[in-house]
Amino acid sequence: MTDTNDISRIANGFSKLSKAEKLKATASIFPDAARVEAEMNSFNHPDAARQKIFDEFSENTITNYYFPYGVVPNVIINGKSYMMPMVIEESSVVAAASKSAKFWSTRGGFHAEIVDTRKLGQVHFIWNGDKQKLIDAFPALKAELMEQTQHITANMQKRGGGILDVELVDMTAYEPGYYQLKASFETCDSMGANFINSCLEEFASILRNFCEDREDFSGSEKQADVIMSILSNYTPDCLVRVWVECPIEELGSFEDGKITADEFARKFAMAVKVATVDTYRATTHNKGIYNGIDSLVLATGNDFRAVEAAGHTYASRSGKYSSLTYIDLSNNTFKYVLEVPMALGVVGGLTALHPMARRSIEMLGNPDARELMMIAATAGLANNFGALHSLTTSGIQKGHMKMHLLNILNHFEASETEKVDAVEYFKHNKVSFNSVRSFLIAYRENILNHG
Amino acid sequence: MTDTNDISRIANGFSKLSKAEKLKATASIFPDAARVEAEMNSFNHPDAARQKIFDEFSENTITNYYFPYGVVPNVIINGKSYMMPMVIEESSVVAAASKSAKFWSTRGGFHAEIVDTRKLGQVHFIWNGDKQKLIDAFPALKAELMEQTQHITANMQKRGGGILDVELVDMTAYEPGYYQLKASFETCDSMGANFINSCLEEFASILRNFCEDREDFSGSEKQADVIMSILSNYTPDCLVRVWVECPIEELGSFEDGKITADEFARKFAMAVKVATVDTYRATTHNKGIYNGIDSLVLATGNDFRAVEAAGHTYASRSGKYSSLTYIDLSNNTFKYVLEVPMALGVVGGLTALHPMARRSIEMLGNPDARELMMIAATAGLANNFGALHSLTTSGIQKGHMKMHLLNILNHFEASETEKVDAVEYFKHNKVSFNSVRSFLIAYRENILNHG
Repeated sequence: MTDTNDISRIANGFSKLSKAEKLKATASIFPDAARVEAEMNSFNHPDAARQKIFDEFSENTITNYYFPYGVVPNVIINGKSYMMPMVIEESSVVAAASKSAKFWSTRGGFHAEIVDTRKLGQVHFIWNGDKQKLIDAFPALKAELMEQTQHITANMQKRGGGILDVELVDMTAYEPGYYQLKASFETCDSMGANFINSCLEEFASILRNFCEDREDFSGSEKQADVIMSILSNYTPDCLVRVWVECPIEELGSFEDGKITADEFARKFAMAVKVATVDTYRATTHNKGIYNGIDSLVLATGNDFRAVEAAGHTYASRSGKYSSLTYIDLSNNTFKYVLEVPMALGVVGGLTALHPMARRSIEMLGNPDARELMMIAATAGLANNFGALHSLTTSGIQKGHMKMHLLNILNHFEASETEKVDAVEYFKHNKVSFNSVRSFLIAYRENILNHG
Repeated sequence: MTDTNDISRIANGFSKLSKAEKLKATASIFPDAARVEAEMNSFNHPDAARQKIFDEFSENTITNYYFPYGVVPNVIINGKSYMMPMVIEESSVVAAASKSAKFWSTRGGFHAEIVDTRKLGQVHFIWNGDKQKLIDAFPALKAELMEQTQHITANMQKRGGGILDVELVDMTAYEPGYYQLKASFETCDSMGANFINSCLEEFASILRNFCEDREDFSGSEKQADVIMSILSNYTPDCLVRVWVECPIEELGSFEDGKITADEFARKFAMAVKVATVDTYRATTHNKGIYNGIDSLVLATGNDFRAVEAAGHTYASRSGKYSSLTYIDLSNNTFKYVLEVPMALGVVGGLTALHPMARRSIEMLGNPDARELMMIAATAGLANNFGALHSLTTSGIQKGHMKMHLLNILNHFEASETEKVDAVEYFKHNKVSFNSVRSFLIAYRENILNHG
């Protein structure tokens, strides 16, 4: 279908085509070009002005990709009830969040707090010279970095943010002459990428001039070779903590009373321990957390790649990739905690431009960035609690068992009558390959003997 | 806006409401409820049957969330040209991929290979008894695991897949009695989550029965307590490698001849080294890779949380979170490589259900899962190459510098005449806070002296 020459021909000047021309050119590589073009067009918003907004978020856009937009009502966080928007293509994510939200709504809800909101950026550079001279000169450089970025930072300072600190980091153990300016920032209600990158690029320029002008620097010391200036998406100090907590006995019983609150708490804790000690499980455990977090991040127009990268790096901070959650059962209390770094914004970026992102933020009561961090982390903990709840009780098993029973019955080519009787029989007996085989042998012998 | 009582009242029986009722209830918490309801409705597809498909991907859905759907023409992978679909909300991602694709299209294109496609899953269980007895019994257990899952695996085996192996893993160093059945799978063209989970749940049941029935097991040995049975999203052996490669001199020159091919290669390599030794940079470096990969994953209806979780865990496998790419400049050759695990499907899940996901797969020429892994990894390498290219040449700086100049001029309250002359002057002079200040002082003195 995708003929090489076709696509190479289309490629010439493609970006300069109009949207309609791009769509037509793309559709032309399908055998049913006209139908594909009409279908792709059908996903455009009927209001052309509104559609243009989506088209301009990215480049070479030809249509929209729909994600289902769902809501979870009555998520209680720090005593306040939220209608939580979730954008996610995977089934059961919204259902799991809803179930957890309902479960905890009568047990004190979710509790959340911001640990810190410090973000980071770096200017990586090569400087060959007498290290001590650079160290001695750094306080003067730092003063210039702070002063000469006032034109960038003034507005952010008015809102309570700005550059918090700049350090000189010696990286020469890794590469001769390699140093960093490592800066920390408070970016208030914006995710801060543009602000941080602007400051860092100015730092790079100030650094070059500083070395050139510095009188006690000579020869190669006059030259700072900047490798790159860029924010870090790893923000271990832009951290939110969210937890659920209640006396163990208040958890109630599970699976129609078959699992007591105590048993549930112990099994649940064991599942958390597994995700703590085993990396293969930790990855999936944390993936489930991001099912929830990303749903909220997507719905509010934030950058899920940044959030994922920060969180998974944080999960590996001990030297072994591990769980982002931990549990404490002391004092007969079930306390389950998620601690996760994330950089979110409620102003700037897509948050105000994407009409549904804006509605999501309104739906949440126009939170500031700190409150949004708490809400997103709650979505993560809610989904993880839901997943472990199902995995450790017989929830998933039970749901799947009936399907399994039917699969096994089909394997043995059971008749419809056999199936009906088997489903009845296995309501009270354990389903397994062997038990189903035995059932069918006995069933068929019985019919042969008495039929 | 979000009144607690309103939302708690809405929450009762919410999931049982019709979609229209859910939308109305959600809109009711906005002050301009009727307008919000109409707006959200406007994002629904005009064809109700088609819209229903999106609604059923998830739960409590009230509308769609639009993502821009763009394309990158003429991406050459292993000599074949692709029209690459990308779904992403961040600007410049599609542009960077296009630029890289064009650059490499005349330098041999991208090269890609599958390292392996083995996926993993685990049954975590507690078994208290004589460890040696369990080890001795394992071959018999393994035979039962393989045989008694035939009803699940038969179809997958016909397609060339199935259960590859099962190991018994001793985890008692972490927790008394904790063991795993760790299984590996080949899932062919499906991502495999359902297949793997079905096998594992059957394993759990077979394991329980095995221990109960085993004649040389006694007391607690008769009981295997299954904690959970679940696939692992960490798939270090479901791995794809993609690279670009050309003689260094063929890289050409950069920035209007100011940067030679050699200088570019050295600076680029230094930027890769930084991402290798510094975790703060590695996170952002890899985040840029996922800008590309996720765009392709989203466009084809795959699960980006699974792909992100696997990749970032892999990035931490040495004990220090690091770059997913590496570079080799030996033999005067520029060779830049990305190695990344991912579990993708071209059948099952959303791939066939989401109309635009299906079109994406068709647009790529109906690749199998292995080919799709290579395409997605290429999107990642293309974006990362584009980012480092900009960061290490003066690309980003240059673009931003004019903006910076205007910011600094505004800071000093420059007049329009001053601005015009400053922009002209700084075409040939270095922009910095101080140089702009000096320019303005000189400019104003000049006017005072001669004006």
